[in-house]
Amino acid sequence: TRSIDLAVIAGDGIGTEVVEQGLLVLEAALAGSDVTVATRDFDLGARRWQATGETLTDADLQAIRGHDAILLGAIGDPQVPSGVLERGLLLKLRFTLDHYVNLRPSRLYPGVTGPLADPGEVDFVVVREGTEGPYVGNGGALRVGTPQEIANEVSVNTAFGVERVVRDAFARAAARPRRKLTLVHKHNVLVHAGHLWRRTVEAVNADFPDVTVDYLHVDAATIFMVTNPSRFDVIVTDNLFGDILTDLAAAITGGIGLAASANINPDRDASGASVAPSMFEPVHGSAPDIAGQGKADPTATVLSVAMLLEHLGLPDQATRVEAAVAADLTERGGRVRSTAEVGKDLAARVAG
Amino acid sequence: TRSIDLAVIAGDGIGTEVVEQGLLVLEAALAGSDVTVATRDFDLGARRWQATGETLTDADLQAIRGHDAILLGAIGDPQVPSGVLERGLLLKLRFTLDHYVNLRPSRLYPGVTGPLADPGEVDFVVVREGTEGPYVGNGGALRVGTPQEIANEVSVNTAFGVERVVRDAFARAAARPRRKLTLVHKHNVLVHAGHLWRRTVEAVNADFPDVTVDYLHVDAATIFMVTNPSRFDVIVTDNLFGDILTDLAAAITGGIGLAASANINPDRDASGASVAPSMFEPVHGSAPDIAGQGKADPTATVLSVAMLLEHLGLPDQATRVEAAVAADLTERGGRVRSTAEVGKDLAARVAG
Ligand SMILES: CC(C)[C@H](C(=O)O)[C@@H](O)C(=O)O
Ligand SMILES: CC(C)[C@H](C(=O)O)[C@@H](O)C(=O)O
Repeated sequence: TRSIDLAVIAGDGIGTEVVEQGLLVLEAALAGSDVTVATRDFDLGARRWQATGETLTDADLQAIRGHDAILLGAIGDPQVPSGVLERGLLLKLRFTLDHYVNLRPSRLYPGVTGPLADPGEVDFVVVREGTEGPYVGNGGALRVGTPQEIANEVSVNTAFGVERVVRDAFARAAARPRRKLTLVHKHNVLVHAGHLWRRTVEAVNADFPDVTVDYLHVDAATIFMVTNPSRFDVIVTDNLFGDILTDLAAAITGGIGLAASANINPDRDASGASVAPSMFEPVHGSAPDIAGQGKADPTATVLSVAMLLEHLGLPDQATRVEAAVAADLTERGGRVRSTAEVGKDLAARVAG
Repeated sequence: TRSIDLAVIAGDGIGTEVVEQGLLVLEAALAGSDVTVATRDFDLGARRWQATGETLTDADLQAIRGHDAILLGAIGDPQVPSGVLERGLLLKLRFTLDHYVNLRPSRLYPGVTGPLADPGEVDFVVVREGTEGPYVGNGGALRVGTPQEIANEVSVNTAFGVERVVRDAFARAAARPRRKLTLVHKHNVLVHAGHLWRRTVEAVNADFPDVTVDYLHVDAATIFMVTNPSRFDVIVTDNLFGDILTDLAAAITGGIGLAASANINPDRDASGASVAPSMFEPVHGSAPDIAGQGKADPTATVLSVAMLLEHLGLPDQATRVEAAVAADLTERGGRVRSTAEVGKDLAARVAG
C-alpha cells in the first residue's frame, strides 16, 4: 500500500466548498485500491491574515514541502488589500516551490454550451510559465501619491526559465496526436523577452522534430480563441499572457466553473524523488459573491484532482475522474444542483 | 474655405489598398463643402527600410508634424525583422507625437455576425493608454544567446501619464448615455502600476461624479468580453492590456476588418492649436497573406476616417461616413466584393 500525503489549502470563499467535494471524489477514485490519502489542512488565506497578519510563514512552507502534493481551493477576499494574499501567499507558493509549469487544459465537453456559436472541437492545453515574467514582483514605485509618481513593473525572463518550460511544452505536444505547439508572445513590441522566447522555441524544436511550431502575437491569439479555437493544440506562453489566455479559454469552454489547473514542478533529485510538491487548483477565484451558498461548481476542482492523480502516477484513477466529469457534463443540461450534490454525483460516478 | 493637410502613410501590404479607399471616402464626405484636403504621401515602412535602412528620420517626423492629421494604413512585413518597424516607425510615431489616447470603439453593427451565439447589444470604446506601460521600450537583455541570458521588459507608468488618459476616458464616459467607466488592469499582481491606475481613477472620479466606475482584472475582462460584452461602455486600460482587449473586441464585433482606431494627442497650445497631429489607422496589420489581391476590407480604414473627421471638428461628415458604413454592413450579407468595390460603394453612399 502507498499513502499520499496531501496538503490541503482550502482558502477563502468558495474555496472551502469546492475542496470538500474535490476530496470526496479523490477518496472515491482511490477506494478499493492500495493507495490511501492522508490530508493535512493548512489554515491560510484571508481569515489567518486578518487574525495574525501572516500570509505564509517559513514554518508553513516547511510543513507544506513535506507533502506529495497540494490541493488548493481559492485565495482572496475583498476585505484584504489587493495583492497581499496574491503576492504573499498564492504566488509565493508558486514561486518558492518553483512551479514553473502552470498547466491549464481546455476542452469543450459534449453537452457543454459556451458563448461561441460555432466553436468546433476544442481540446488544447496552455503551458503557462509560472515563475518569471511580469509576475516576479520586481516592480517598484517612487514618489507615491504625488503628481510625480512613477510605478514600474519589471518582466524578468531567463534562458534557464524559458527553456525548461518550453521543453516541457514540446514534450507534451509530442505526446499528443496533433503534435502542434503555438508560441504566444508579443515579440514585435517586447523585443528582448519575445526574442528570447522565440529563439528558445526554435532551438528546442531541434530536439522535437515531429512537433510543428507556429507563433501568434498575444492579441492575435485572442482573436483565434474566439474564431477558431480548434487551431490550438499546445500553447506555450509567459506568465501574464498565460493568465489572460486561460481565462478566455475557460470562458469559451463553458466557464471558469470547469477550468482546472496544475502548478507543476517536474524536477526530481538524484534518487528520483520530486524536489517539491506540485499544486492543483481550479482557475477560478474565491467568488465572494456566491460564497457560503452552495452554488459553486466543484467541477474545476474535481478536474484538478484528476490532474493531481495523473501527476502522482495514477493515470487510471485520473481517467476515471475525467470520465465521470465528462458523463456528468453530458447529462447535466439545465439542472441546478448544489455544490455538494455535484460532488456527490461525481463521486458516485467515479465509484462506478 | 478650410484646407486639411493630411499626412498619408499607406505603409505595407494591404495598407496601401485600404488607404486608397479611405481617401476616396474622405473626398466624398467633403465634396460640396468648403473643406478641402491636401494629402502628402510619406514613403515609410518595409520598402523604405529595405532600400535605405531608415525607419523614420527626424526629417520625416518634422514634415509629418506640420500636418493636421495622419492617415496610416498598416506597417509590417515578414522580410523585416520583428520589432524594427514596430518600434522604429509605428510606436515611434505614437510616442513622439505623444498620442496618449489610443481610442478604439467596438460596435456590433446590425447585419454583422460575430462568433458569439448571443452577443446582445455591443457598443463600447476602449481608451488605451498610448505612451507608457510595457510599450516604452525600456527593456534590455544580458548575455544574449547564452544559457545565462536574462531579458527584461520594463513597464513604466507615471501619475502624469495615467491621469491624463484617465481624465480623457472619464470625459468620454460622461458624454455617453450610460456614463460607465471600467478600469481594466491586474492590480493584484502588478501592484505598483495597478495601484497607481486605481488611485488615479478614484481621484479623477471626484471630477466626474455622474460616471459610474467599476474594475476588472484583465483576465476577467476577457471572460466578460465573450459572455457579456454589453456590460462595457468605456474601458480605460494600459497600453498592453488595451492592445489585447481591442483585438478580442474586434473579433467579437465582426473582425479586424471592421475595427477602427485613433491615436490622439488632445493637447492644445495657448493659441488653441493642436500641439501634434493625431493619427488614424485600422487596428489590423499589413496582412501579407492577402496583400495585393484586392481582398482586404477597407471598412476599418473608412471608420478611422470617420474618427479623423470627428477629431478635426467635422462631426456631420463623420456621422455621414459612419452611417454609410452602417448601411453597407446591414445590406452586405455574404456578398464578396473587392477592396475597391467596397470603397466605391461606401463613397457612393456618403455622396448620397
Ligand atoms: C489570483 C491571481 C494572482 C492568479 C494569477 O494571476 O495567476 C489567478 O488569476 C490565476 O490565474 O491563477
Ligand atoms: C503592430 C503593433 C506594434 C501594434 C500594437 O501592439 O500596438 C498593433 O498590434 C496595434 O494594436 O496597433
